[in-house]
Amino acid sequence: MVQKGALIVVSGFAGAGKGTIVKKILAQDPNLALSISMTTRNPRNGEEHGREYFFVTKEEFETAIDKDMLLEYAQYVDNYYGTPKKYVEDMLSEGRDVILEIEAQGALQIKDKFPNAVLVFVTPPSAEVLKSRLEGRGTETPEVVLKRMHRASQEVEIIDKYDYLLVNDDIDTCTEQMLEIVRACHKRPCSNEDFVSKLKNGLSIYR
Amino acid sequence: MVQKGALIVVSGFAGAGKGTIVKKILAQDPNLALSISMTTRNPRNGEEHGREYFFVTKEEFETAIDKDMLLEYAQYVDNYYGTPKKYVEDMLSEGRDVILEIEAQGALQIKDKFPNAVLVFVTPPSAEVLKSRLEGRGTETPEVVLKRMHRASQEVEIIDKYDYLLVNDDIDTCTEQMLEIVRACHKRPCSNEDFVSKLKNGLSIYR
Repeated sequence: MVQKGALIVVSGFAGAGKGTIVKKILAQDPNLALSISMTTRNPRNGEEHGREYFFVTKEEFETAIDKDMLLEYAQYVDNYYGTPKKYVEDMLSEGRDVILEIEAQGALQIKDKFPNAVLVFVTPPSAEVLKSRLEGRGTETPEVVLKRMHRASQEVEIIDKYDYLLVNDDIDTCTEQMLEIVRACHKRPCSNEDFVSKLKNGLSIYR
Repeated sequence: MVQKGALIVVSGFAGAGKGTIVKKILAQDPNLALSISMTTRNPRNGEEHGREYFFVTKEEFETAIDKDMLLEYAQYVDNYYGTPKKYVEDMLSEGRDVILEIEAQGALQIKDKFPNAVLVFVTPPSAEVLKSRLEGRGTETPEVVLKRMHRASQEVEIIDKYDYLLVNDDIDTCTEQMLEIVRACHKRPCSNEDFVSKLKNGLSIYR
């Protein structure tokens, strides 16, 4: 049964654990390919060019925009973030599933361009848990925690535009649910166009 | 996490094995409730009123139509088939998932009324396999087999309107895939409205 790859977009509040879930599903499903975003922000400690992000200059980013080399992009706090088009298109056409870990604004741009993209939103079980996870990191000032909670209070409004909502109460359960969603995606008619056209062809003699 | 029940509509070619799959998922998932259709056709050998169908007269069926007691109905070969509304609505409001095993025309009516209904189409791996399964039953004349193949050649045209396509190559694999689809349904925002509204509420103080 020939299948085209599925485009899976994962978003979620900062602190929801989406990065961990993405890492875990990548480790478990070799057909998944992770799209690396491009950004103009500076690398943080331990981040590598081509692993966490492609780190580029503002000029390079704007050239990519002009040349229509990005599937989506957005600007946050003076920095650009975007998804290079070529890698995603290459992987999909090879039948690989592609994971984009991007924020809500970009996710909705993707859904506009690829109506068959599957949008998954990851959230902790409650606002209180989100706050305590952010505080528990110990790396963020109370001011930054409040900023992130403020951002979450805005992002929550667009959850209904997502196809799936994953409550990250337990990381392993959540990973398994995410893998189930990916498997369910493969059962959509749009992921099985070759099969459907063969079936139509085979039945056409009985019309 | 409070969840409303999901409405799952299963259709498929005669001979695709959808009845067997429905029986198997009902046995494995106690939260699933099977909707029993109403029909004016005569019971076949071994069929029981209230188990396979509610067998009613033409007058009773038309009264049900007039009183808006059906979610959908259709006419085939002089007989009516329809889905009584009350049972489905009661089960869904109790948080049960409801399975409707109905044909394509009815399935699309359901999708119109319940945009969140999930439509699953079950098919054998090919037209050839479908034909040999129908022949293998040994209960149908070659004429009836050709009639069913003709009907399949028409039904195949609406597969793209279904949310999922299950290829019934192996009954246990197919049953597991069906259960995965049901579980994925529970992760949609529309199945978690109470959770989302609590989350919005909890985050509203950070706006």
